[in-house]
Amino acid sequence: MEPTTPQEACFEAGIKFGTLYHQFAGTPVSPKSAASLASAMEEAIENQPFCSSVSVDILEDTLRAELAGQSADYTELTGRFMEVEIVVDYEGVDVVATMAMDGDYPRMALDRVEG
Amino acid sequence: MEPTTPQEACFEAGIKFGTLYHQFAGTPVSPKSAASLASAMEEAIENQPFCSSVSVDILEDTLRAELAGQSADYTELTGRFMEVEIVVDYEGVDVVATMAMDGDYPRMALDRVEG
Amino acid sequence: MEPTTPQEACFEAGIKFGTLYHQFAGTPVSPKSAASLASAMEEAIENQPFCSSVSVDILEDTLRAELAGQSADYTELTGRFMEVEIVVDYEGVDVVATMAMDGDYPRMALDRVEG
Amino acid sequence: MEPTTPQEACFEAGIKFGTLYHQFAGTPVSPKSAASLASAMEEAIENQPFCSSVSVDILEDTLRAELAGQSADYTELTGRFMEVEIVVDYEGVDVVATMAMDGDYPRMALDRVEG
Repeated sequence: MEPTTPQEACFEAGIKFGTLYHQFAGTPVSPKSAASLASAMEEAIENQPFCSSVSVDILEDTLRAELAGQSADYTELTGRFMEVEIVVDYEGVDVVATMAMDGDYPRMALDRVEG
Repeated sequence: MEPTTPQEACFEAGIKFGTLYHQFAGTPVSPKSAASLASAMEEAIENQPFCSSVSVDILEDTLRAELAGQSADYTELTGRFMEVEIVVDYEGVDVVATMAMDGDYPRMALDRVEG
Repeated sequence: MEPTTPQEACFEAGIKFGTLYHQFAGTPVSPKSAASLASAMEEAIENQPFCSSVSVDILEDTLRAELAGQSADYTELTGRFMEVEIVVDYEGVDVVATMAMDGDYPRMALDRVEG
Repeated sequence: MEPTTPQEACFEAGIKFGTLYHQFAGTPVSPKSAASLASAMEEAIENQPFCSSVSVDILEDTLRAELAGQSADYTELTGRFMEVEIVVDYEGVDVVATMAMDGDYPRMALDRVEG
């Protein structure tokens, strides 16, 4: 069947999540560079079509705990160091999607589809 | 509203597309390395949950035309050098999505949502 | 032969350049997101060992000229949209390296090795 | 001072290492996709100037041990899952560089500079 508009809106939300994660995973990050990285991630993804807002929270406490147990004073960005919310507005359909840890897996999920 | 299963399936398809594109965009590529890169992209994304198949076609003729007009004998992978089809099977819903150039823009689109 | 300290310093400078380029190439970028991306790139790479400073200049005029000729209002970061200087201080040896376009190729080069 | 030819050769080797690591870190990987990913990494980096050979060994046993302790059946490529050797031949100078774990840190190092 042809996709519906809400299904296309959800596809767009997924694209933004995959982009955000795989563009930036692996970036060297520390508590002092966390804020600039979060801002850049938000503004980069907001460039993409139909993306009305992106909120990236780099979990500095989790990052500090990681650094306390290793030799280097930075690490690579990965899912357990961030929480993300992305809002897509596609032809009148609003989609809110989030990423947070689900046990040991960074789970991206649709929260709401409206309109 | 709560997302439906087909909407979640479309979100999953979007994640795979964003991942594929932004993990591999920028990779040094030439006609002789195109086949190994395409295979690695397919097998890497097929690891992701609910992804039943990925087909990546690196457009060697387009690549050759690009290289003919520049000084280096390789370039960076970007959307105009590939066509991609991804099939997701999420809780009984099959989604087929593709990427190809739409004018100058690499357009990712849902083709079919079934079940 | 065993590498010398200045040779190791130059190797470190190269690592930083390859990291910066291939971590961030492909990022969606527009004139309005250029500043946050440049800051994040600088602070991310400054986390790496022996890296005393990184300066990233995203060429907003070049970016605007690119966008004027295409359908989307953002593009993907690549070498022709940036100039970069990286300073490494490795065991008393200072290395200054830069990237800028050399015709159509983004050339990374050692400028000076001191000490 | 102006850089010497051997110093430039070492800079080139560093670029290749930073490229390899940050282009491919974060790629979804499992024991069954490890071989295609390793081949693609080798051939992609061998495209770069002055790069005579690249050898990537994805450590399938380490990967299997990681997967045994987590919920998903794939993970993201990072330094502890690979060993890499890169050989650069720059204007008659051969450089051999390698990456392997040094405790918990993926250490990239110059092994030999000849000529």
